[in-house]
Amino acid sequence: MAQPSVSPTPILKDELDIVIPTIRNLDFLEMWRPFFQQYHLIIVQDGDPTKVIKVPEGYDYELYNRNDINKILGPKASCISFKDSACRCFGYMVSKKKYIFTIDDDCFVAKDPSGKDINALEQHIKNLLTPSTPFFYNTLYDPYREGADFVRGYPFSLREGVPTAVSHGLWLNIPDYDAPTQLVKPLERNARYVDAVLTIPKGTLFPMCGMNLAFNRELIGPAMYFGLMGDGQPIGRYDDMWAGWCTKVICDHLGLGVKTGLPYIWHSKASNPFVNLKKEYKGIYWQEELIPFFQAATLSKECTTVQKCYIELSKQVKAKLGKVDEYFIKLADAMVTWIEAWDELNPSGDSAELLPNGSKK
Amino acid sequence: MAQPSVSPTPILKDELDIVIPTIRNLDFLEMWRPFFQQYHLIIVQDGDPTKVIKVPEGYDYELYNRNDINKILGPKASCISFKDSACRCFGYMVSKKKYIFTIDDDCFVAKDPSGKDINALEQHIKNLLTPSTPFFYNTLYDPYREGADFVRGYPFSLREGVPTAVSHGLWLNIPDYDAPTQLVKPLERNARYVDAVLTIPKGTLFPMCGMNLAFNRELIGPAMYFGLMGDGQPIGRYDDMWAGWCTKVICDHLGLGVKTGLPYIWHSKASNPFVNLKKEYKGIYWQEELIPFFQAATLSKECTTVQKCYIELSKQVKAKLGKVDEYFIKLADAMVTWIEAWDELNPSGDSAELLPNGSKK
Repeated sequence: MAQPSVSPTPILKDELDIVIPTIRNLDFLEMWRPFFQQYHLIIVQDGDPTKVIKVPEGYDYELYNRNDINKILGPKASCISFKDSACRCFGYMVSKKKYIFTIDDDCFVAKDPSGKDINALEQHIKNLLTPSTPFFYNTLYDPYREGADFVRGYPFSLREGVPTAVSHGLWLNIPDYDAPTQLVKPLERNARYVDAVLTIPKGTLFPMCGMNLAFNRELIGPAMYFGLMGDGQPIGRYDDMWAGWCTKVICDHLGLGVKTGLPYIWHSKASNPFVNLKKEYKGIYWQEELIPFFQAATLSKECTTVQKCYIELSKQVKAKLGKVDEYFIKLADAMVTWIEAWDELNPSGDSAELLPNGSKK
Repeated sequence: MAQPSVSPTPILKDELDIVIPTIRNLDFLEMWRPFFQQYHLIIVQDGDPTKVIKVPEGYDYELYNRNDINKILGPKASCISFKDSACRCFGYMVSKKKYIFTIDDDCFVAKDPSGKDINALEQHIKNLLTPSTPFFYNTLYDPYREGADFVRGYPFSLREGVPTAVSHGLWLNIPDYDAPTQLVKPLERNARYVDAVLTIPKGTLFPMCGMNLAFNRELIGPAMYFGLMGDGQPIGRYDDMWAGWCTKVICDHLGLGVKTGLPYIWHSKASNPFVNLKKEYKGIYWQEELIPFFQAATLSKECTTVQKCYIELSKQVKAKLGKVDEYFIKLADAMVTWIEAWDELNPSGDSAELLPNGSKK
């Protein structure tokens, strides 16, 4: 098969890292070669650190296994999950770039309805480089997209939008269902290509999936902590959800935008619903208390950076969710450790200081 | 041309009225015949009442001109706009059905990407008969649609949803732009078919367009007042916006859902942007105060019916927006008149008494 042509200089080539958590050889990158090869990869190897992970030739990458994480973070490595894809957030921390794209190794290139391969990364970058509109809903979806605009009745003062911090992409084929839904609908496949990107309104929470996700590390990086999951922890599969809830509350406070919709990737394989149920079951009932907690969470005016927001949120987690289960006390402590580790590895200081309306100081 | 076959008994045939405001012959109904012919039409004739409006043969309809409105409502007819499509809301008031679909007479049958004619009414009915999810965003859009569901991380306690009060449809071809955008982008056409229906989250306002709109009259009818526009009024083209903002605030209070997205209609002809600018210009700057007003509006616990909500909202309009312009004092009075007229024509009493979470008393 002829190799697809690679464009000479893809957009944001030197400002974006692709973060991949994995336990296996990264053959899936062959399919992504036309879109990813010119970007730098950060591979976070989960599980047995003696295993050798093969990366297809021609890729520029750095790889961290558990030994590396322990060496770099010392005792603070305790905040990075083990035997869970939540370990990916270590990659966000060691990156030196402005933007992060993270993808699971069972995600392949999807096709749009015309049969063309979807350049997921390019769409994420478009989403991140155009503003968001969290204060009022636009019925024709993203008003900054070609062929679209703000509709009649959209206040003119809100048309400038706010900076976009997060771009949440979706999945064709295997939908991202919880274990009970997987068990009930084992054969359901997502075949609907919805040609839209939209801003999740201020005050509204959403289930953020880490499978196909991009964000502006300078704007929101320190909030993208994937929590304590997997080995030695009572839950799994809530890593990205946790990050999404914290991130959304902080974006709303700082006046930053979160988009969802395009791009799609092709999610190839459903994980085992029985294993998932074991990981999820505590999360499924805890979540009923977590959502009201995050819906009601407010941050003080003094929280002008993501770090300050995150530390304040960790205190609220400890005070309010600590009553739900002692796990949340441990998690609240890990949130603080995460910020300490972030600041240690990113000594240039706080994330861009933002006023609560999203403009820079 | 062979007449398209008409299905024997379309859904909700005896429970839905189609309301059409017009100043001309309704030739556009020829194209809609396969989808509309078995439903009852309520035609609200705007402008010169001596003009005879021709309705294509085979349709079952009632038609009201200005003389009829004056006769039926007496002095309360002052709340119904003249020389403006806002007059359509008279049709909502005289209907005796549970559901209303309203459409403009320059809207035609659109085609889906496969080239098939879109049965807009059928999609609206689907939207209205399935619940809404205003409390948490589902990233795969309407979870009640075939092939979709709630994604991982969606709280189980919220999966029952709430009753849907409004289904807001969209438009292909001519987008619903304000006059300034029309002037700047005269050639822009909406060619993007977004295959999605979604709930507008609680607390988020949207620009509701009256061109292609359906609602549950029992749940939300008395809030669907299109205000004072057109002849003798300082603004136009904000009738549907006004209704949308009031409706959304009341739906949020009563725990009812508002959906937007499918179905599309084909909007054939852009209205004159210069004429529109004259109608809109006051609205364009008033709107900058209206949106914060509606965003901050809260209703008391005593507001357990749409009528009670609407009367309370009218008081807030008078108190707070009356300072913006005396027009809003007149409008607040008309809101009260509208409710009085509604109750007179619908003597069975209040709309279904709802508890603030949307369940019936």
